[in-house]
Amino acid sequence: MCEIQNKKTPAEKISMLQSRMEDCGMDVYIICTEDFHGSEYVGDYFKAREYLSGFTGSAGVLLVLAEPLRAALALTEPFWECAADGGSVPSALLWTDGRYFLQAGTELSGTGIMLMRTGQEGVPRLEEYLERLFAARQSALNRPGLDMPGNAPVQDCKRFPNRLTVGFDGRTVSVDFADRIARALSDRVVFRYEYDLVGQIWQGRPALPAEPVWELDVKYTGMLRAEKLKRVRDEMKALEADHFVISTLDDIAWLLNLRGNDVKCNPVFLSYLLLGMESAVLYVNRDILSGKITEKLAEDHILVKPYDAVYGDLQGLPAGTRLLLDAKQVNYTILKSVSGRAQIINATDPIVMMKAIKTKAEIENMRRAHIKDGVAVTRFMYWLKQEMKKKAEGGPSASVTELGAAEKLEEFRREQAGYLGASFDSIMAYGAHGAIVHYAATKESNVVLEPRSFLLSDTGGHYYEGTTDITRTYGLGALTPEEKKAYTLVLAGHLELANAKFLYGMRGTQLDILARTPLWREGLDFLHGTGHGVGYLLNVHEGPNAFRHRIPNGAPDGSLCGDGITNSSFGAVLEEGMITSDEPGLYFADRFGVRLENLILCKKAEKNEYGQFLCFENLTMAPFDWDAVNVQYLSDRQLAMLNAYHQQVYEAVSPHLPEAEGKWLREITAAREKTR
Amino acid sequence: MCEIQNKKTPAEKISMLQSRMEDCGMDVYIICTEDFHGSEYVGDYFKAREYLSGFTGSAGVLLVLAEPLRAALALTEPFWECAADGGSVPSALLWTDGRYFLQAGTELSGTGIMLMRTGQEGVPRLEEYLERLFAARQSALNRPGLDMPGNAPVQDCKRFPNRLTVGFDGRTVSVDFADRIARALSDRVVFRYEYDLVGQIWQGRPALPAEPVWELDVKYTGMLRAEKLKRVRDEMKALEADHFVISTLDDIAWLLNLRGNDVKCNPVFLSYLLLGMESAVLYVNRDILSGKITEKLAEDHILVKPYDAVYGDLQGLPAGTRLLLDAKQVNYTILKSVSGRAQIINATDPIVMMKAIKTKAEIENMRRAHIKDGVAVTRFMYWLKQEMKKKAEGGPSASVTELGAAEKLEEFRREQAGYLGASFDSIMAYGAHGAIVHYAATKESNVVLEPRSFLLSDTGGHYYEGTTDITRTYGLGALTPEEKKAYTLVLAGHLELANAKFLYGMRGTQLDILARTPLWREGLDFLHGTGHGVGYLLNVHEGPNAFRHRIPNGAPDGSLCGDGITNSSFGAVLEEGMITSDEPGLYFADRFGVRLENLILCKKAEKNEYGQFLCFENLTMAPFDWDAVNVQYLSDRQLAMLNAYHQQVYEAVSPHLPEAEGKWLREITAAREKTR
Repeated sequence: MCEIQNKKTPAEKISMLQSRMEDCGMDVYIICTEDFHGSEYVGDYFKAREYLSGFTGSAGVLLVLAEPLRAALALTEPFWECAADGGSVPSALLWTDGRYFLQAGTELSGTGIMLMRTGQEGVPRLEEYLERLFAARQSALNRPGLDMPGNAPVQDCKRFPNRLTVGFDGRTVSVDFADRIARALSDRVVFRYEYDLVGQIWQGRPALPAEPVWELDVKYTGMLRAEKLKRVRDEMKALEADHFVISTLDDIAWLLNLRGNDVKCNPVFLSYLLLGMESAVLYVNRDILSGKITEKLAEDHILVKPYDAVYGDLQGLPAGTRLLLDAKQVNYTILKSVSGRAQIINATDPIVMMKAIKTKAEIENMRRAHIKDGVAVTRFMYWLKQEMKKKAEGGPSASVTELGAAEKLEEFRREQAGYLGASFDSIMAYGAHGAIVHYAATKESNVVLEPRSFLLSDTGGHYYEGTTDITRTYGLGALTPEEKKAYTLVLAGHLELANAKFLYGMRGTQLDILARTPLWREGLDFLHGTGHGVGYLLNVHEGPNAFRHRIPNGAPDGSLCGDGITNSSFGAVLEEGMITSDEPGLYFADRFGVRLENLILCKKAEKNEYGQFLCFENLTMAPFDWDAVNVQYLSDRQLAMLNAYHQQVYEAVSPHLPEAEGKWLREITAAREKTR
Repeated sequence: MCEIQNKKTPAEKISMLQSRMEDCGMDVYIICTEDFHGSEYVGDYFKAREYLSGFTGSAGVLLVLAEPLRAALALTEPFWECAADGGSVPSALLWTDGRYFLQAGTELSGTGIMLMRTGQEGVPRLEEYLERLFAARQSALNRPGLDMPGNAPVQDCKRFPNRLTVGFDGRTVSVDFADRIARALSDRVVFRYEYDLVGQIWQGRPALPAEPVWELDVKYTGMLRAEKLKRVRDEMKALEADHFVISTLDDIAWLLNLRGNDVKCNPVFLSYLLLGMESAVLYVNRDILSGKITEKLAEDHILVKPYDAVYGDLQGLPAGTRLLLDAKQVNYTILKSVSGRAQIINATDPIVMMKAIKTKAEIENMRRAHIKDGVAVTRFMYWLKQEMKKKAEGGPSASVTELGAAEKLEEFRREQAGYLGASFDSIMAYGAHGAIVHYAATKESNVVLEPRSFLLSDTGGHYYEGTTDITRTYGLGALTPEEKKAYTLVLAGHLELANAKFLYGMRGTQLDILARTPLWREGLDFLHGTGHGVGYLLNVHEGPNAFRHRIPNGAPDGSLCGDGITNSSFGAVLEEGMITSDEPGLYFADRFGVRLENLILCKKAEKNEYGQFLCFENLTMAPFDWDAVNVQYLSDRQLAMLNAYHQQVYEAVSPHLPEAEGKWLREITAAREKTR
């Protein structure tokens, strides 16, 4: 019975949701992809948008329209030029970004849900759509002759004649997101944020995760919990706050030197923290804390209370409390829960910057983790090249599939001491699958690798010594000139950014162009940022550092519910100790994709009368694929950078390889020259 | 008598000013470099800061401290680490930016005025300095035992015991500037903006300029006055304004298709414009308008009133007026004059963007102007090279000086039809003078050119067909390897920016790095922006487009009184039709300087699935100097770009040259190759 219910189509689920919406008098209901903490990746419990729409991407917002509203809209002119097929207003629309256009197009096909490609010309943002929709409804309601008692849909809409009633689960929505909607509608909006309507119709919903919490030793973090607490409290003092409510999971994990496993691939645990100047309260499922950890927390004056008790405690804050919170981070319900007697100090979470600037111990450890990871990736490349060679020669070889290759790489990683697991769902994408930026092979999509075209492999691991994230694209056999050109242009961009030298004060938005220039010269581009910050045994996507070129013009950009990386305006100034990915790519739908990614550490170069110069150190240690390079597309300088990097890779990785693989690595990393 | 008075030293003038300040009860008095319109260059009437301090640069702010304040400060600990020699508080301080550090150091030497190098480490901004100074004064006043009746200076300070009284002529100060001071002092400030104290002590002050106004034909502007007025009024409607007060001189000149000559090198005229939806009032010295122009203005419903009547008219605006103004542009007194019954709509002046995006006619004309200008510059280069060759060979040659060279170039320009005059004071800087970014040769500094080192020549002209701005650096004889390296690195940066291709949406702050990268790789930099917008027969420095890399972090940057180009935060998105300079440089104090500058026009390249690509067209048509190039510092691509540009120059310029010069141009623009 339950199984049959789970097989309801998206259209059926949306119809059920629409009934609930009518019960609550909502015009629209918004389902975001977030948990209660604004996490980028979320546990299955929170996958309400995926449950409802079938779209599995990590970013996207679903908007469901109530039937009375649709009926009213049917009475007016189309309010937006690109309406669904047949011109009628769809029941639901899904906004997502360039990484997911192909995937969402496939997964939404036949659902009746309209795909809104964020950032594309002529595509309104969610709040702009709501604004137009509201204006259209008002115009429908004001048409003479429609105000008849028998016209039920129109009557229904008139319950709040001058307001749009927008529903959502406030715990899964950022303050900024709600504000943008309110602004777009000039406050002619009623928010109903108390209802989790998807939860009401979702039978067989997974339970909240509850994995054990563990402590990360100071030899890995480089800073004691007490020292971190002191630094944060110093910042609170500077902001004249006496309390600080923290809901971002990796901030709490970083601050307490604790790790968990409540979010797939992110070693964090579901919790809130209310930090006072002397003591603190950790709101968490008590079952996941050992007695020893509870005791050690008590030594630092940190009490433990149940996970959902935070909302009541915020309501009960005494008069005169000066509560720091970062409205870009806390969910809408947290903000609404704060006692009216408390004074809210809205400021940027000071932990974001502390966490981004790695300690000396973290940096040393990260170097070690990346050598281990490089050994695994290099061995994988050797294995892959051998398998494809055998296959090309028609010799005896077992079929290798995308999933099989991913498992093989995971095996090599597991052989490394201190490996804890993947830092994100691995992308192992062969041929045309490589053009799907966030492709994840499934049993259904899995294909056999052939000795031609590219395998795009974007994977990463968590080690006690830190987190890795590496993309390599491998030529599996003879490549076309176009494939080689694409690979080499991406490599050129990658090398230019990794080898940048620049004056202190520059931001990632100002360096991004270095990686794109080789592509732009050819009229090519890729629809994602060039790089993101990376946590230390924390989230593989971490702010505030990033490389990207899109800067919103005044208004917030097309990002969705509070993505901390893409939603800040101009990006942070790059600081010594930040770790960022450098991952340009090229994608040709239905044909192939190339992406090449290293993690790079921002370091000091010389300081002189012009100021402090900065540069990057490559942390990632794994060879690029000469088989895929057409050296004519590399400048002399780029070729020299590639040779120098390969020399570094050889020196770091070869001592840890079996003999045959070491010999092979020497060959494929040997310096090459241009033939003229 | 008058002459003797004019020879007062800066210290004497400051002392006189201090007396006036005491009469008005001011603690400090600020003297900016601006006229009443925020113009970058100002008539002699407005050069109060130069009169008082002797510093002749185009940007700088002087702060004078009243004696009672200094006396109070002497009673406390030094409030700022880098006090003047001997640790005492100086009577006056001057803030200026990197372009003028060397020049200001020389000109202020011995005056007792302390030089504040804006943007250098440890140098507070003016408002930060005032904040610290105020805190120090308060601490002095609160010291026990100082509150004695006999302690006159301290008593004097106590007139406004909890306020700093800051004086300035409000007509010469931007609203933003006053706001920054108020913010820094948390509003514990009293502004006295009604007094022009320098005017009170300045005997023999030059008169306000009053040059005739003339009309620029639509064949040059490409848009009729009526059409421009309509476009601006459409923007006013969109902002729900019914009046618009405009005080920026080039905006008024652009809007009315009129030109004048009230600011040296800038063909504008002193005026304000109060624009209504049907009619307008031009506030201007009536003597400078011909009857014919007055008549034609009347046809467009534009009345004429006396220049200074604008302040009274603003006070008299009727209740309910919705007045648009751009607080970044109008002076403080304008804002304070607006009737309290009017509603102020503070928004970005819509003319800025209209003016920056050149019309088709303006672009066509600009191409023509630049060929004429290129002919003059090429002939100058030929002449210069011949003179230096003769001199090196010991043959008979008249001495050429910096001023002589500037006059020669001016002669070549005057030979071109439609030439109207210089677009800014020419910089003709030999050898070590080239390291002074805004050097202007004077009779005193003028030197003879020798057949060695560099002549840096930054000059420009106004033509009916538009405005030019070109920098070339010429090798006058044998150059050292270091000189050639510097020239070639600057050339590489210049070429990289001029040849950029990029997606629509990018800003100048994101492209700047292309020009700096070749320098940054060598640990070098230059302390000025890489490029500025250029007006059409208007100001040679025009916003909002610019290339620069410094982005203020939240707070406004170190810019001074409202420099429209450097004070906006992240710079404008580059649009088709914008014209910007591309002028990287390198400067070695007491040795030499290199700068290379073309004007480049932003144009559309291909549009495809990634979006609209943009690129630049070189407007400037004059050869670079192969004698100064060490080709080993150019990449293959940069060499190809240089060869392609030289080919363009030859084709554009050679038809207009005498035979010998044409032959020579063919030689020096012929494509070259790298020897390997």
